[in-house]
Amino acid sequence: MQYAKPLAALVAEFEKLPGIGPKSAQRLAFHILRIPEDEARKLSDAIINAKENIGQCSVCFNYTDKDRCEVCSDPRRDGSLLCVVSEPRDVAAMEKTNEFRGVYHVLGGVISPIDGVGPESLRLNELENRIRQGEIREVILATNPTIEGDTTAMYVAKALRPFGVKVTRIAHGMPVGGDMDYADQATLIQALQWRREM
Amino acid sequence: MQYAKPLAALVAEFEKLPGIGPKSAQRLAFHILRIPEDEARKLSDAIINAKENIGQCSVCFNYTDKDRCEVCSDPRRDGSLLCVVSEPRDVAAMEKTNEFRGVYHVLGGVISPIDGVGPESLRLNELENRIRQGEIREVILATNPTIEGDTTAMYVAKALRPFGVKVTRIAHGMPVGGDMDYADQATLIQALQWRREM
Repeated sequence: MQYAKPLAALVAEFEKLPGIGPKSAQRLAFHILRIPEDEARKLSDAIINAKENIGQCSVCFNYTDKDRCEVCSDPRRDGSLLCVVSEPRDVAAMEKTNEFRGVYHVLGGVISPIDGVGPESLRLNELENRIRQGEIREVILATNPTIEGDTTAMYVAKALRPFGVKVTRIAHGMPVGGDMDYADQATLIQALQWRREM
Repeated sequence: MQYAKPLAALVAEFEKLPGIGPKSAQRLAFHILRIPEDEARKLSDAIINAKENIGQCSVCFNYTDKDRCEVCSDPRRDGSLLCVVSEPRDVAAMEKTNEFRGVYHVLGGVISPIDGVGPESLRLNELENRIRQGEIREVILATNPTIEGDTTAMYVAKALRPFGVKVTRIAHGMPVGGDMDYADQATLIQALQWRREM
């Protein structure tokens, strides 16, 4: 027996989503068939609505449904402190800390020669233009602590050198609550290298 | 910062799905924003299309987009052998074995007093009507090996007694590839009780 076509099509669409395997896709599809039609329609509409109404912030390239995102249009944020991230989801992660009061710049990726992504596909010109306006005192590079993220951070730091702006990198080290015994070697090496006096 | 409304709404809808936590929901929503609009529309359309075109088989209550499901309308299937399951997804699981050549009956749930589900909400009358037609020789009860599934199997078996049809239950025991050492007590007890001579 094969699934009825509309059901098979729904399973196939769910399977395309990240982290959703064949088993989960089937589970989700059966769930959709079980819930009331208006509930299913809410999900379907939310997908279209998000696609149609979410765009990029004209300043920082974070996701927004307006011209400027919530951060960029908030006068209480510190416009002199700029956090550079690779993706909009990193803005969301940073915002959850409730700690950072500056603004963001979303590069739109990381340098990854293997995937054929060079620096020219990142939003570096836009970053430089923002720095040229003179308000920014410090640029915090918050790309992932991976080879690609570190490479990108180094590239951006070098590109910003002519502007004379302070450029910092988020610390690499032991995650809070982590266990020395379980930490991987690379993390321990970084934790040693980033150590500071106490 | 809060997500822009259309993005927050999409995250909220994904979170309602089974097995999708806040983190996965966010990941899926950001994925949707990243893919081309026609890809997103395919998923949205597949949801609506499945809801609108998938209904219940008039014979066995499996999901289908026709009057009778693929199994019930296949003349090569053995109509004398009836497998009783609780949900359409169980039909899918059974079909994957490529072993069972009979037909199905989907009860539409299991007896669960805690959830307020009694036998009257299962499709028992419909099952009895099918048996009254006289073609069915054996009824295999393939509800889950859980308290609810076992209770339901016992209830159905009792309800079918007056019809004089052969009623069997799928075996409970060690899963193939399992490890005695890791098996839970309940499974081992069942494996002992269901043992057979070799």
